[in-house]
Amino acid sequence: MPLINVKVIEGVFTEAQKAEIVQKLTEAMVRIEGENMRSLTLVILEEVKSGDWGVGGKPVTTADVKAMAAGTPPG
Amino acid sequence: MPLINVKVIEGVFTEAQKAEIVQKLTEAMVRIEGENMRSLTLVILEEVKSGDWGVGGKPVTTADVKAMAAGTPPG
Amino acid sequence: MPLINVKVIEGVFTEAQKAEIVQKLTEAMVRIEGENMRSLTLVILEEVKSGDWGVGGKPVTTADVKAMAAGTPPG
Amino acid sequence: MPLINVKVIEGVFTEAQKAEIVQKLTEAMVRIEGENMRSLTLVILEEVKSGDWGVGGKPVTTADVKAMAAGTPPG
Amino acid sequence: MPLINVKVIEGVFTEAQKAEIVQKLTEAMVRIEGENMRSLTLVILEEVKSGDWGVGGKPVTTADVKAMAAGTPPG
Amino acid sequence: MPLINVKVIEGVFTEAQKAEIVQKLTEAMVRIEGENMRSLTLVILEEVKSGDWGVGGKPVTTADVKAMAAGTPPG
Repeated sequence: MPLINVKVIEGVFTEAQKAEIVQKLTEAMVRIEGENMRSLTLVILEEVKSGDWGVGGKPVTTADVKAMAAGTPPG
Repeated sequence: MPLINVKVIEGVFTEAQKAEIVQKLTEAMVRIEGENMRSLTLVILEEVKSGDWGVGGKPVTTADVKAMAAGTPPG
Repeated sequence: MPLINVKVIEGVFTEAQKAEIVQKLTEAMVRIEGENMRSLTLVILEEVKSGDWGVGGKPVTTADVKAMAAGTPPG
Repeated sequence: MPLINVKVIEGVFTEAQKAEIVQKLTEAMVRIEGENMRSLTLVILEEVKSGDWGVGGKPVTTADVKAMAAGTPPG
Repeated sequence: MPLINVKVIEGVFTEAQKAEIVQKLTEAMVRIEGENMRSLTLVILEEVKSGDWGVGGKPVTTADVKAMAAGTPPG
Repeated sequence: MPLINVKVIEGVFTEAQKAEIVQKLTEAMVRIEGENMRSLTLVILEEVKSGDWGVGGKPVTTADVKAMAAGTPPG
């Protein structure tokens, strides 16, 4: 019965990665709650527009996240 | 003062059906809370991308929901 | 597959009314989406602390909502 | 560590105004929580489709919000 | 920068299990997004009152979830 | 018509500070959207239990947030 809502910035993850997020978060949850809860475990993934996510008041873009993920300091 | 947030998979409901969801959920709520609360009753309807909604770890698409609604088992 | 999240101020509705909200919003939704979607229709009701809900910058309390519902202008 | 989620109707605010919302809400929050919390203060801005926001059961469109903001009664 | 919001029914998970949910969902996410995103990965776990979660219009209680998890059909 | 949802860890802010959050975020929003939108601007403040908020997979407690706010590195 858990509901897992994931918000990410659009364009960071491919379709395959988004399907993997849905699958792997469910697996992680099922390992804790038990196999009987699997069919009731929901994941809703929502994408937020590039720049409409702020950290410390500064907009974060898709490019910023990709740079961070790659270990490149944001410019 | 209630806030009703509805999340559905995109492309399942027509514009007319979405307007009906807003209207009918409000009516159902007003019948419980009283007519004086009507103008304060909010409904926010959000559409999640096809496949970005997972049940038991499996992505659910717009086509899957339409098949379920029609009583056809998902393929 | 719709997810209906309802936020209300705590102490406004009785347990019986909250169960009625869950039931009636589901009925309203099922009438639009079709009977086959019933078992997949979720309602999550959350209560927000009295005063932690603001309209126009002014905190709204449980007493305020009850006064509004009764048709009494807030004091 | 606060998370501020803002939902608005799409097309009401320009990109510049959305960046201003992220910045000014963060500033308001930091003034209360203290400067040390700035880097942990998140704002997520989400746009809801015109008409998918209901007040009292009536859909509100982008045009309606612009008319209200301009002080013009909705037609 | 992903935000993972988990809603569960209160009283189903112990404090230790809730900490495990936070940890394991983060690990699952980091394995997909990359180690550099770890410090930006948030999990917010919220508990919904027993009975304030409805499936198909029927309230689900803490006892119901425990029975399902144990493989016992709800009474 | 904006809806501002703020999630904080419980016990970090006093009742007076929470009222200030509601008021100041509304003021910041009204300055951008215009005075006519004030009465339609909602703030909903929700408190998450100490420890049920994770950053990088580590639970954050009320004490942790207070230490951060005070400029003390978490122990």
